[in-house]
Amino acid sequence: MHKHLLEKTINTTTIYEGRIIDLVIDDVELPDGKMSKRELIKHPGAVAVIPVTKEGKLVMIRQYRKALDKVIVEIPAGKLEPGEEPLPCAKRELEEETGYQSEMLEYVTSFYTSPGFADEIIHLYFTDQLTEGNLNLDDDEFVELVEVTLEEAQKMITTREIYDAKTAFAVQYLQLRK
Amino acid sequence: MHKHLLEKTINTTTIYEGRIIDLVIDDVELPDGKMSKRELIKHPGAVAVIPVTKEGKLVMIRQYRKALDKVIVEIPAGKLEPGEEPLPCAKRELEEETGYQSEMLEYVTSFYTSPGFADEIIHLYFTDQLTEGNLNLDDDEFVELVEVTLEEAQKMITTREIYDAKTAFAVQYLQLRK
Repeated sequence: MHKHLLEKTINTTTIYEGRIIDLVIDDVELPDGKMSKRELIKHPGAVAVIPVTKEGKLVMIRQYRKALDKVIVEIPAGKLEPGEEPLPCAKRELEEETGYQSEMLEYVTSFYTSPGFADEIIHLYFTDQLTEGNLNLDDDEFVELVEVTLEEAQKMITTREIYDAKTAFAVQYLQLRK
Repeated sequence: MHKHLLEKTINTTTIYEGRIIDLVIDDVELPDGKMSKRELIKHPGAVAVIPVTKEGKLVMIRQYRKALDKVIVEIPAGKLEPGEEPLPCAKRELEEETGYQSEMLEYVTSFYTSPGFADEIIHLYFTDQLTEGNLNLDDDEFVELVEVTLEEAQKMITTREIYDAKTAFAVQYLQLRK
């Protein structure tokens, strides 16, 4: 389908293989036969959870993001381990990052974050069935738990404490779910 | 603020400087004094527009994305040129990619797409004031215009024709705006 839009890979050059991302440059043949180059980031994929407490508060984490040089507030999320399925990964990351557990994650949707240059996909889940679990942060993770009402979360978008696509999506999702 | 969460850059190594993205590796000192590495993608930033016709249809473009090896449908978007402000860039990209013009772009929000590893930010605009302009695609751009109702767009999320964060956000935005 849509064959007239496709690009053909002529050559792939791996520039960097890292801990989280790889960078490759593809030489491609465009639909009109001309050549071009595509700079591509390979990412293992990720999950994110929209966790809501019994009191109706959205659970998020505040953390420093080196890429932005900013502290922002995001819904809990994490990368897929090799071979890991999204659902158990979402349960694991929710508990590790927030200390809340949930056996009842509801699948919301999946989306690519930056289709222009990266294959990172996020699988998104919702839960309002939280129980106490065990916080277990990675060695290089320093985060603070944030629990706010939907109205407070909407305000945090305008003040740019919430500043990323998945969390902005999550806030709209909760508005629509009400 | 939130000083106890910050990471200090000890060393920066540029791995790759490309046409669209750069890759740098930062050695950082974590809040507990330990060292870690951060793989970071530098991106010029982007704009996207949620364009709605007089008939209430959402205007999108279908294109092949090499990073995903998939043809997907997205709202019109494009990278900021060096020194370019988001608003004129949004007007330019809207017209170049869809052939529609608009002098009345309403600012919606901005968000980072992948805060874990990239500084790409998208500035998002809305317009339902479209007039005929001139299509003017980049040499390496091959796209098809798609105009659908909001209900059709919602369905395209479940069929994964719409499969990226900014467009999924845009569909929710239109649902909430109704």
